[in-house]
Amino acid sequence: MFDVFKRPKVRIEVPRLKQRRPPALTERVNLAELTPEIVPYLGQAAYIQLSVFESLARAVMLAPNVGAKELLGPAAGFALGKHEMLTAELRRLVAEPSSVIEPFAPAIDRYAAEIRGADWFESLTSIYLTAGILDDFFVLLATGLEGDVGPRAARIVAGDDGRQVIVTMLSDAMSADSMLSSRLALWGRRLVGDTLLVARSAIHHSGNPQNDEQRIEPVFTELIAKHSRRMDGLGLTA
Amino acid sequence: MFDVFKRPKVRIEVPRLKQRRPPALTERVNLAELTPEIVPYLGQAAYIQLSVFESLARAVMLAPNVGAKELLGPAAGFALGKHEMLTAELRRLVAEPSSVIEPFAPAIDRYAAEIRGADWFESLTSIYLTAGILDDFFVLLATGLEGDVGPRAARIVAGDDGRQVIVTMLSDAMSADSMLSSRLALWGRRLVGDTLLVARSAIHHSGNPQNDEQRIEPVFTELIAKHSRRMDGLGLTA
Repeated sequence: MFDVFKRPKVRIEVPRLKQRRPPALTERVNLAELTPEIVPYLGQAAYIQLSVFESLARAVMLAPNVGAKELLGPAAGFALGKHEMLTAELRRLVAEPSSVIEPFAPAIDRYAAEIRGADWFESLTSIYLTAGILDDFFVLLATGLEGDVGPRAARIVAGDDGRQVIVTMLSDAMSADSMLSSRLALWGRRLVGDTLLVARSAIHHSGNPQNDEQRIEPVFTELIAKHSRRMDGLGLTA
Repeated sequence: MFDVFKRPKVRIEVPRLKQRRPPALTERVNLAELTPEIVPYLGQAAYIQLSVFESLARAVMLAPNVGAKELLGPAAGFALGKHEMLTAELRRLVAEPSSVIEPFAPAIDRYAAEIRGADWFESLTSIYLTAGILDDFFVLLATGLEGDVGPRAARIVAGDDGRQVIVTMLSDAMSADSMLSSRLALWGRRLVGDTLLVARSAIHHSGNPQNDEQRIEPVFTELIAKHSRRMDGLGLTA
């Protein structure tokens, strides 16, 4: 048998003229310029995790069987845990975390209703893709926060999310129903715009819109690249 | 001012001829006779905790403000944690816990829909009172399980539940709305029958109905006494 599939591994070893790893986003963009104050950052990040928890709890409730509930339960628990850890960070800085979080609720609730989807599969797709984008974004933003809150917040948001089970659940469903794939591919693309608007709402604006756009653009490029990889992982075309 | 309300406290201190503490239920009833097999016990207990989680998650979603969501979040987390710990116990005994849990889902789901209540306050009342009865019951039943699973299951079910916040939330709401108190008092009484039917469905039946009733009766008397104390704690007449 020809060993064709192993050859590229060898070819990768030839010397290259170009740098192999592009510089990290944090080396290219001064994220501190985009970063909001610590308190509103934590308030918005905390409410987003609560919203992800609510979406996952809803997916547990609507799951067609106990096996699916079992798979999604831990993901709901992780989102709730992240919410509680971010709220605990906020409690170190302010007396009443809920008063900081509350102003972010209406916009996130409207967004959550828009991305809810028409059925359980669209809901799962939304949770996997949008929570992925928003977690990536809030981890990036955290690198611009002053003091030791930034690294702690980044570790909280980047922690285990338990959402990988969604990939298997959706892949199984799509392999049994080819119409579902094309519907979810459309749905996955549709989610990006609304989600990037939420991300944009978290950014500190300098007052110079053109300058802001230049700084935001590479961040969004990175978020969309990672989103495309998640779409690929689901077997959907981004 | 006459101090009439304090007098009974003094009278309690006079010497008594009777034993002051009634014998514990476990001394009066052989709970092992009522106890189902370990596997179905864990399956039903696990699904009940999942159902309590779903009800609490729904209460988080429908909460009127972020402060109320913050208060209820930990209770949802505790119920989910108990579900996961009971499922882990089940996984030590069977390959696929969900296949053991699944048969209990339809009856518990119907029950959950019946006790849901017409609004958020009725839902909170249901969660506090019915999860209280069922936790008490499954802790009692666990004392009849063989081996070391019984004590572990009892510790899991009796663990922190975070539901005490509901007492404060309901008391605040009722003090601002006297109609609410009488509505919730009726609702609290109405919940008992459906909940005791769920408890009854967990009991091992000997085939001798009259004998079963004699063994079940003191257990239910104890559950109702504890329920009445929770009603009192809410300021409702049982």
